[in-house]
Amino acid sequence: MSSISQALAATTSADHLVISDDPLHPANLIPELCRGFYHLGWVTGTGGGISIRVADKVYIAPSGVQKERILPSHIFVLPFPSPPDGDRVFLRRPPLDLKESACTPLFWNAFDLRGAGSCVHTHSQNAVMATLLTPGNTFRISHQMIKGVRVGGMKAALSYLDTLEVPIIENTPNEEDLKDSMADAMQRYPDAPAVLVRRHGIYVWGSDWEKAKTQTECLDYLFEIAIKMTAHGLLLVQK
Amino acid sequence: MSSISQALAATTSADHLVISDDPLHPANLIPELCRGFYHLGWVTGTGGGISIRVADKVYIAPSGVQKERILPSHIFVLPFPSPPDGDRVFLRRPPLDLKESACTPLFWNAFDLRGAGSCVHTHSQNAVMATLLTPGNTFRISHQMIKGVRVGGMKAALSYLDTLEVPIIENTPNEEDLKDSMADAMQRYPDAPAVLVRRHGIYVWGSDWEKAKTQTECLDYLFEIAIKMTAHGLLLVQK
Amino acid sequence: MSSISQALAATTSADHLVISDDPLHPANLIPELCRGFYHLGWVTGTGGGISIRVADKVYIAPSGVQKERILPSHIFVLPFPSPPDGDRVFLRRPPLDLKESACTPLFWNAFDLRGAGSCVHTHSQNAVMATLLTPGNTFRISHQMIKGVRVGGMKAALSYLDTLEVPIIENTPNEEDLKDSMADAMQRYPDAPAVLVRRHGIYVWGSDWEKAKTQTECLDYLFEIAIKMTAHGLLLVQK
Amino acid sequence: MSSISQALAATTSADHLVISDDPLHPANLIPELCRGFYHLGWVTGTGGGISIRVADKVYIAPSGVQKERILPSHIFVLPFPSPPDGDRVFLRRPPLDLKESACTPLFWNAFDLRGAGSCVHTHSQNAVMATLLTPGNTFRISHQMIKGVRVGGMKAALSYLDTLEVPIIENTPNEEDLKDSMADAMQRYPDAPAVLVRRHGIYVWGSDWEKAKTQTECLDYLFEIAIKMTAHGLLLVQK
Repeated sequence: MSSISQALAATTSADHLVISDDPLHPANLIPELCRGFYHLGWVTGTGGGISIRVADKVYIAPSGVQKERILPSHIFVLPFPSPPDGDRVFLRRPPLDLKESACTPLFWNAFDLRGAGSCVHTHSQNAVMATLLTPGNTFRISHQMIKGVRVGGMKAALSYLDTLEVPIIENTPNEEDLKDSMADAMQRYPDAPAVLVRRHGIYVWGSDWEKAKTQTECLDYLFEIAIKMTAHGLLLVQK
Repeated sequence: MSSISQALAATTSADHLVISDDPLHPANLIPELCRGFYHLGWVTGTGGGISIRVADKVYIAPSGVQKERILPSHIFVLPFPSPPDGDRVFLRRPPLDLKESACTPLFWNAFDLRGAGSCVHTHSQNAVMATLLTPGNTFRISHQMIKGVRVGGMKAALSYLDTLEVPIIENTPNEEDLKDSMADAMQRYPDAPAVLVRRHGIYVWGSDWEKAKTQTECLDYLFEIAIKMTAHGLLLVQK
Repeated sequence: MSSISQALAATTSADHLVISDDPLHPANLIPELCRGFYHLGWVTGTGGGISIRVADKVYIAPSGVQKERILPSHIFVLPFPSPPDGDRVFLRRPPLDLKESACTPLFWNAFDLRGAGSCVHTHSQNAVMATLLTPGNTFRISHQMIKGVRVGGMKAALSYLDTLEVPIIENTPNEEDLKDSMADAMQRYPDAPAVLVRRHGIYVWGSDWEKAKTQTECLDYLFEIAIKMTAHGLLLVQK
Repeated sequence: MSSISQALAATTSADHLVISDDPLHPANLIPELCRGFYHLGWVTGTGGGISIRVADKVYIAPSGVQKERILPSHIFVLPFPSPPDGDRVFLRRPPLDLKESACTPLFWNAFDLRGAGSCVHTHSQNAVMATLLTPGNTFRISHQMIKGVRVGGMKAALSYLDTLEVPIIENTPNEEDLKDSMADAMQRYPDAPAVLVRRHGIYVWGSDWEKAKTQTECLDYLFEIAIKMTAHGLLLVQK
């Protein structure tokens, strides 16, 4: 048996990493949360998803599958941090013809640059319309219920009087190619809790899955009301 | 054992106050109703909720948690009326690191000033857009299906020919700081069944949870149709 | 025991009329359908509902209750046709402080004037907005998927090339007072499958509950697309 | 027993073709998927549905029934390819007064002309509005998340930089009469993954039910955002 086939055998049999009776185990949570995201219109047509990191393990859904039909057995487990040589390594991969989410390098930005415990990616039309209606490369809003959003996604909650800023990067044909421009935006906007991708969607992170999810909800709510306000000629930022 | 730790031990062991087989027990109803509110978009991202008062006990959800995932064991129970010294007292609090809803003083306005048995708070975008599109500080509509709304939230049902009035107060960074301006609006508008908070949401009350909930639905319906009518240039109040 | 209390005792004990293992029994269908209507936004805040007639019995939901929480035991059963003296008679009424739907006389219009087997009433915002955006007293649309709608609600299906006409009557403070104007509209528009009530909603009927429900869906779909077309300046009727 | 009644007896007793414990059996999938489509607003009022072909068998739902209430026992099974004489033959038909979907000849276009394994038909308002807002007979969009759509519905995924083209054909009173114009559009637009029908809806196909469904979701998403962009005066195609 070659070392490669040994490694494959090992990872496909590491099912104990994704089998748990605990509904809050990441391999159970990811399918449940993705079903919820599907019904919110965030992951229509296989796009989008959520990754959860617990200590030195990262749980990731497959690419190109119906996000409302994921099973725990479909989940990939990767080590964190990545090995220094840069090759992608798996602690567990599904015994099917599945590939890990194309968002994996983008999720890693959130883990590496912010120490996040979870990262959500949606194709929400509210996020996309916000990128189309925002002049320039920064979405801004103030004097809304932005208290559910945290500085940099990880620190203190914003206040009603603060102005939320979310950078917008340009889309690329391949999701992986967004890695550098997303990282660059995260460094230029250290207080931003998310990065919008023009004509594509958004990446949002938090210290754990609950905070990543609730911040995604808050941001989506803000984009939605911003679109409505724009349609009525109302300004998004008050002095 | 100090008196404080004795009191804490007592309240965290008062689980019988929130454990019941009756689906209509407040500790069961609050989680169920909050799940429904989540799917209506009223409590996105941990905001909003419902409080129920039955005789001398008030049941309240925790602050800053996912409202579609509350469990009966998360519910706080407070005495009503409050003790005269003004300190907040609990008959039961969850054995977790949870804080009672920041809306607690606002819910109390409804109990104290109107004798309400329940109070709902939403961040509904229909309520928020109504506050943004209303010139001045009073939302008004007539000749709609407003029969589900009661005078002052507690008395006779409104008629199709009546004009519904809901006062709008200005938002503050801290939810608790709305207490006085909400109380003031309730006194100036004795017939209003609710108070809108600009760029934030709404507080609605009723004699029991059913009437608070159905009045919240009716008001949300009216705000939604008012927004559509405004977009089409139609007047909200007929002579 | 007086004859009135005897009659009451008889009707409250007639529970066999609403207890059935058959999910298609009207007393089981009405709660299920009303839950579906609630999630469509048709019966928000206790308004609206459905009545089903099977041979000489009419099944009706209570008035002023949460339509997503009706139980079979809440259902009223009335004889059809009504006794000649005009008093309302019950074969079965719930042993609770409930009143039959205020729409009862309106449902009767559909049974008496069209021989319908079911009648649906909604407060759908699509129906209400259609009454607000229609100049005059007749909603008209053509060249849409109107094949699910039947001539007079009971006969042959409409064709893509037909023009659907639905009369609009003016609302009144009391639902019962719509009876005569609804009947009048039904006689003036013998081919109409429904009657719209300005600023209020719609009554739709069919030969059975399935046809009443699917026609309500088709009409609501047509009102919704008519509103969108109007917003884009498109005409609803093609020559 | 005549040969016709013998044939009928045979097909109505071929229940083994639609009875299976496997949730992914077409006779179980079609009811489940149609329920999902109902809640997306795609098959309101009995319109629309999905057909699945597995090797030499085609599974089809009945015509004119509530699509959220289909049972496996309602499913028709037809042979593929059709017998050369052109008569419609059934391997199994329901023992009820049901007729196969009027879309059957249209589904067959996808099987015959593209080798599809599944075809979806919706009356989605997004599709209908796209046909009403598109000048000319081709819907076009670029620089959106069109990666979930495949060239011709069956080949390589589109890229962010590609322009998606979907032909629009004119509606006819009878669904069957669309067969030739749909086939003609499929031949003129060999790369199109779908055919829009003006004022009616859309037909989308894929190599299997998952790809047909996810492509339908992607296309519906694109029509929805195209309508929003049009309302804000934004162009759908970038150079």
